Amino acid sequence: MANDTPLTVVGNLTADPELRFTPAGVAMARFTVAATPRAFDKTRNTWIDGEAMFLGCTAWRTLAEHTAESLTKGTRVVVTGRLRQHHWTTDTGEKRSAFGLDVDEIGPSLRFATAKVTKATRGSADYPPTGPATSDDPWSTPTPVPVGAGEATPPF
Amino acid sequence: MANDTPLTVVGNLTADPELRFTPAGVAMARFTVAATPRAFDKTRNTWIDGEAMFLGCTAWRTLAEHTAESLTKGTRVVVTGRLRQHHWTTDTGEKRSAFGLDVDEIGPSLRFATAKVTKATRGSADYPPTGPATSDDPWSTPTPVPVGAGEATPPF
Amino acid sequence: MANDTPLTVVGNLTADPELRFTPAGVAMARFTVAATPRAFDKTRNTWIDGEAMFLGCTAWRTLAEHTAESLTKGTRVVVTGRLRQHHWTTDTGEKRSAFGLDVDEIGPSLRFATAKVTKATRGSADYPPTGPATSDDPWSTPTPVPVGAGEATPPF
Amino acid sequence: MANDTPLTVVGNLTADPELRFTPAGVAMARFTVAATPRAFDKTRNTWIDGEAMFLGCTAWRTLAEHTAESLTKGTRVVVTGRLRQHHWTTDTGEKRSAFGLDVDEIGPSLRFATAKVTKATRGSADYPPTGPATSDDPWSTPTPVPVGAGEATPPF
Repeated sequence: MANDTPLTVVGNLTADPELRFTPAGVAMARFTVAATPRAFDKTRNTWIDGEAMFLGCTAWRTLAEHTAESLTKGTRVVVTGRLRQHHWTTDTGEKRSAFGLDVDEIGPSLRFATAKVTKATRGSADYPPTGPATSDDPWSTPTPVPVGAGEATPPF
Repeated sequence: MANDTPLTVVGNLTADPELRFTPAGVAMARFTVAATPRAFDKTRNTWIDGEAMFLGCTAWRTLAEHTAESLTKGTRVVVTGRLRQHHWTTDTGEKRSAFGLDVDEIGPSLRFATAKVTKATRGSADYPPTGPATSDDPWSTPTPVPVGAGEATPPF
Repeated sequence: MANDTPLTVVGNLTADPELRFTPAGVAMARFTVAATPRAFDKTRNTWIDGEAMFLGCTAWRTLAEHTAESLTKGTRVVVTGRLRQHHWTTDTGEKRSAFGLDVDEIGPSLRFATAKVTKATRGSADYPPTGPATSDDPWSTPTPVPVGAGEATPPF
Repeated sequence: MANDTPLTVVGNLTADPELRFTPAGVAMARFTVAATPRAFDKTRNTWIDGEAMFLGCTAWRTLAEHTAESLTKGTRVVVTGRLRQHHWTTDTGEKRSAFGLDVDEIGPSLRFATAKVTKATRGSADYPPTGPATSDDPWSTPTPVPVGAGEATPPF
């Protein structure tokens, strides 16, 4: 992939990661990271919170499984990947778009926590690639599946 | 500022930068950068375009003025800053949000172009900071100004 | 801090983190991350390893303590911070420099592992700042300490 | 390329870019960017310079040519690419390494300057890739060339 937009975000999970499987049987985990910048207010001599940012994230394959097994609502994470924008049209014809992060790596932050790490016995085979590749599409289906009507959520 | 989300984007301006001034007289430039990732398709042995990303950007002060003077629709740029998400409520009560980039530095990319650079004779006094600071708000007004009704665009 | 150089690195610890305390009693952890890029060789249709990068990292305060408690030699980590270059002169008068990372956040990568996260009961008081601040120097000493001769290692 | 370490640096060229050609006729430009972080000293209520960072950069092909044509000593630039570390052994058997940046995109910063951009009429054919690819090596030689003795500089 060329001209990607690499991005690292630090923040807290707004909910438990949601683990799903594509029709082709590929695991994917979705979660939202809330990142809050802080500015130093010189007049009040204290740090104040800025406007929070909520970024939808998608992890794939064993990384998705490990994420769902290890992280829960509120966990502070360091997540790095590529910023993406998806575009779609609503049922009423409105054009919408949403930003999201295709996750390359994620880990629980050690700023306010400790972690006990256990090496996985599987999963190294799919590295790289980390995401859906052009000629190795995790969305591919061995048999056609009906698509639900009224799908209005972005694909991540 | 702590826990910011630094981001660098490479892409093309979708239009000429729009230069405005806040009620306090601070220059700001707004523009959108379109970034298109490319993936190599092994089966077809060629690069194919991915889904384009459109990111609204805001530059401040002399950086805003230099941007408006130097860049035009279509210019490929390298822009670095901090990713932000703004939240607002529409007139009909809907909650909306939009991502944008608070620009720290921007320059025309030399990939497909050359550039003749001219050092500015002003402007070094405001560095740093580059953006609106807590105790030095560019939006501050010496006199109250009426806010237009029906404002539905995000503040960047 | 302005005009910092933010950097995120993914790689493996080359050894257990080394925990020390400054004369002022501030914890610091030092470790090296080895990151190996991989390129796809079209002619051989396989991924091949590029030249590995070894980056010295320094974490401070409770983040340092949590790092030393949680990570060991070989752990794959996601680490984000600010790239720095330190300069010094050897005993023989040679000028040397070394790059290193001032760590803002670090976590064990979930690509090849799972993690059991335990929230710390202490440590939130020192956030931010995460590193040595100008007017709050972790290197400050209540009493003078002699500096060992022949110091040839960079200060991080 | 997977598991690269993306990096963006803002700073000033320490000298004019040096343009060379590989034996295969591929243009490359080398230059060093000096980046100086600044910290706000609360006790003195002013910004103070931190320790400067000097990072060697290498650009390839038409990007290299445009860089050499457009930028000179002192120009402030925004440069983004991938951080690399090269390792070599000196004539006396010492192991050395140096960090450097493989440039993907570079442009003159508009913070303290304006720029007149001229679109190039050539050069789009080589995008992507931007750097030396495994099966398309810019260092390849149609005929063998003698390597100079005493080569002690890193290859970027």
